[in-house]
Amino acid sequence: MIQVSIIGSGNVAQHLIKAFSQTTEIGLVQVFSRKPELLTSLVPNDKIISNYNLLKAVDLLIIAVTDNAIAGVSDQIPFENQLVVHTSGSVSMDALNSKNHQGVFYPLQTFSVSKEVDFNIIPICLEATTEKDYQILETIAKSISEVVYHINSEQRKALHVAAVFVSNFVNYLYQIGNEICHENDLPFDILKPLITETANKIKTLSPAQAQTGPAKRNDTQTINAHLSFLKNDNQKEIYKLLTKSIIDNGKKL
Amino acid sequence: MIQVSIIGSGNVAQHLIKAFSQTTEIGLVQVFSRKPELLTSLVPNDKIISNYNLLKAVDLLIIAVTDNAIAGVSDQIPFENQLVVHTSGSVSMDALNSKNHQGVFYPLQTFSVSKEVDFNIIPICLEATTEKDYQILETIAKSISEVVYHINSEQRKALHVAAVFVSNFVNYLYQIGNEICHENDLPFDILKPLITETANKIKTLSPAQAQTGPAKRNDTQTINAHLSFLKNDNQKEIYKLLTKSIIDNGKKL
Repeated sequence: MIQVSIIGSGNVAQHLIKAFSQTTEIGLVQVFSRKPELLTSLVPNDKIISNYNLLKAVDLLIIAVTDNAIAGVSDQIPFENQLVVHTSGSVSMDALNSKNHQGVFYPLQTFSVSKEVDFNIIPICLEATTEKDYQILETIAKSISEVVYHINSEQRKALHVAAVFVSNFVNYLYQIGNEICHENDLPFDILKPLITETANKIKTLSPAQAQTGPAKRNDTQTINAHLSFLKNDNQKEIYKLLTKSIIDNGKKL
Repeated sequence: MIQVSIIGSGNVAQHLIKAFSQTTEIGLVQVFSRKPELLTSLVPNDKIISNYNLLKAVDLLIIAVTDNAIAGVSDQIPFENQLVVHTSGSVSMDALNSKNHQGVFYPLQTFSVSKEVDFNIIPICLEATTEKDYQILETIAKSISEVVYHINSEQRKALHVAAVFVSNFVNYLYQIGNEICHENDLPFDILKPLITETANKIKTLSPAQAQTGPAKRNDTQTINAHLSFLKNDNQKEIYKLLTKSIIDNGKKL
């Protein structure tokens, strides 16, 4: 059994704890948190610690904290020459203190504490400095997910930016859809099948093939009607920019 | 059995033909197309016509053509006082020639000819000028979908704009994600579970609750790192505008 400890109690930490608890290959040794109350339903009390000096050496220590805190947390670790990884998409591997073996264990997913996820289909992006360390990370990643990738720091940065576009920004467009429905006495539910199908389409079509709508058709009459319909400046500005981009993109093809 | 004919052979027309062929309540009488070759696999040859004068009066004639062509097509219809609808989200009901009873039969979905859809879960938005006409539309809509709404022309305009945000613009953000992957030797497949989960999340959370990412956290360090990573001006401009909107939106809450 591979021994793993986790530092953190946020979204990623909690989902990792749940995923590890469902596999017999991983033994969760300790979880460090400054807010142990967040973990009491997930981890036995005697495994929760709030003092770095109590951290034991394990096969893998996962630092699952906010990006800005990663370097500082890695400095606090009381042991050396062990494998220590972070879980961030946007922090480079060498932000970790080099007294331990550095690595990255980045699950590419949008986590909310209140929403369960199926870890099995979440791509886990791994990076390590030695082949032996990589093997350990791969064994652990494969114990909770079927989709494991070797991704270097530069690629991971690209992936994180791409993820912002296809997830954070996409969700914000859902929010605008919600606003427009709300302002016009329409239930947001009416848009949900369309949202689902739009996401499903790109499983079998490329996004370029799947593109539809007035901008794609360069249908200026509809575009102008939409722009005069929109009264909210923010919505209008986003409509203009994305429409222009789709039209320009169509000209390049 | 209710008798229905369709004018058009594009995405919407083809998907409607398929949906009607799967219910015993609807009899498809004729399909008018200038490109009958698009329909030969869907409709028996003797039902395909290319001459308006051959159109027979039926319980419902559906005009499923591009927005700009709707009015002109409705002028060509050789009969009067029958129920004639269009399928557009953005054209008002009275664009149809008033010699026939006007109505709207708008399936709120993104259609591609090459991608099958489950019509049963597609919201169909109906509008008519009389209660009797509305009942006919409702019976027909309910024969192919479980989700039928009464939506007036003003609401339909709002819905269509909202649909552009949550579908056309969302798909374009998928395309940018695809571009970024391609430019960095990453398979687009790696983003697909994230795309699916982002769409699934809003089935149980509101988009505001589901929002995550650097803009939501006002994490300027990550935002600036992403902006210096992006070399493509179009991607950069979209990143800036959507990030600013998410931050401003957070301040309002």
